[in-house]
Amino acid sequence: MKKIAVCLSGCGFMDGAEIHESVATLLALDQAGAMAVCCAPDIPQAAVTNHLTQKPTGETRNVLIESARIARGEIQDVKKIKASDVDGLILPGGFGAATNLSTFAAEGPDCTVNPDVERLVGDMLAAKKPIGAICIAPATLTRIVGKKDLHPKITIGTDKQTAGAINAMGGQHCNCKTTEMVSDESHKIVTTPAYMTGQGPADIFEGIRKLVNEVLRLADVYASRHWR
Amino acid sequence: MKKIAVCLSGCGFMDGAEIHESVATLLALDQAGAMAVCCAPDIPQAAVTNHLTQKPTGETRNVLIESARIARGEIQDVKKIKASDVDGLILPGGFGAATNLSTFAAEGPDCTVNPDVERLVGDMLAAKKPIGAICIAPATLTRIVGKKDLHPKITIGTDKQTAGAINAMGGQHCNCKTTEMVSDESHKIVTTPAYMTGQGPADIFEGIRKLVNEVLRLADVYASRHWR
Repeated sequence: MKKIAVCLSGCGFMDGAEIHESVATLLALDQAGAMAVCCAPDIPQAAVTNHLTQKPTGETRNVLIESARIARGEIQDVKKIKASDVDGLILPGGFGAATNLSTFAAEGPDCTVNPDVERLVGDMLAAKKPIGAICIAPATLTRIVGKKDLHPKITIGTDKQTAGAINAMGGQHCNCKTTEMVSDESHKIVTTPAYMTGQGPADIFEGIRKLVNEVLRLADVYASRHWR
Repeated sequence: MKKIAVCLSGCGFMDGAEIHESVATLLALDQAGAMAVCCAPDIPQAAVTNHLTQKPTGETRNVLIESARIARGEIQDVKKIKASDVDGLILPGGFGAATNLSTFAAEGPDCTVNPDVERLVGDMLAAKKPIGAICIAPATLTRIVGKKDLHPKITIGTDKQTAGAINAMGGQHCNCKTTEMVSDESHKIVTTPAYMTGQGPADIFEGIRKLVNEVLRLADVYASRHWR
């Protein structure tokens, strides 16, 4: 059974992981017979947002503890996940992927990435294991791979400003529909726009299901190459 | 396009709505071409639980505001939903369905139900529109229908103690697998055990998808009878 790390960034699209995208990832993994290994950084959220009024609440919440709501308590500090423990890594979206996993939302192409997330992504790249990123998470991923002088094909949908930032960080942005995904097979990087373009759960699930299946296919390619 | 009210009870299975069950409901509705009308009571949560440690946090959170995380901000106070606005109602599970929508978790068959939820369920019954309930939510639903001397077939899976409470409140408990649902066509009440018995998102999605499609079928029966 393939094990895929799923790195969450809180619980709610305005200040954490996008809930529909996260559950769609877990559902598609389970439907494909793979095991999700949920993880998140053990850090305070950059903000806490009232999802009814869209205003800051002034509360303090912890990214790992709030992510545990989506993971039903089965979650680890991302610091403890080794590339050798898993066959692939997926980063769901939500504003948390650009505020808690990195500072992309505030600082754009010059952003910094959470060091534990950056370490895990770097180890996965070095191990040539596949990485999927959903919605705005490809921006954080591109910041990491761009610093390594890798130039993968990446999608965040069709938003020109964000696409420009992807290219500024070293990615090669490709437009993509909600129900599709972009696979850069040579870098083993797979991305789908989800709620960057999507209108509802059925469409974003379709794109995420394709991303999950492609990550699992690329993990198989890895496994078969290492077996020979 | 059919409109189905989805009554949430917070955001997280230990103190609110079960997130996977809620998203599975929204996904299945969208896949079937129906519109979800999310709602929740505007009340404080009975508790706030750290989903990593399973311990109370001592915080105060609001059911409607936390439910808005699952609904991506598109949610109304359940008080404002009229039976005439929608074609059906679905109550996802999670401990919140037995702590925030009613006091079933603490008081069992003698529990009281949130008056706005009780009013909406009563109006749906009077209008002969279908009601679906998932996981532990059937307990809260049975408390309402039992007081009206209705005795629908209900499942919460296979747990004997909870099944006994269902029967004590006036329901007729039937055992059911995670991937199936129980439909009481004469009362237009549909239930599925989800995480009362389920091990993962693929199985609970299968049962919830069947429940959603049955609620939509029963809504059609309603529409065709009223049209004739």
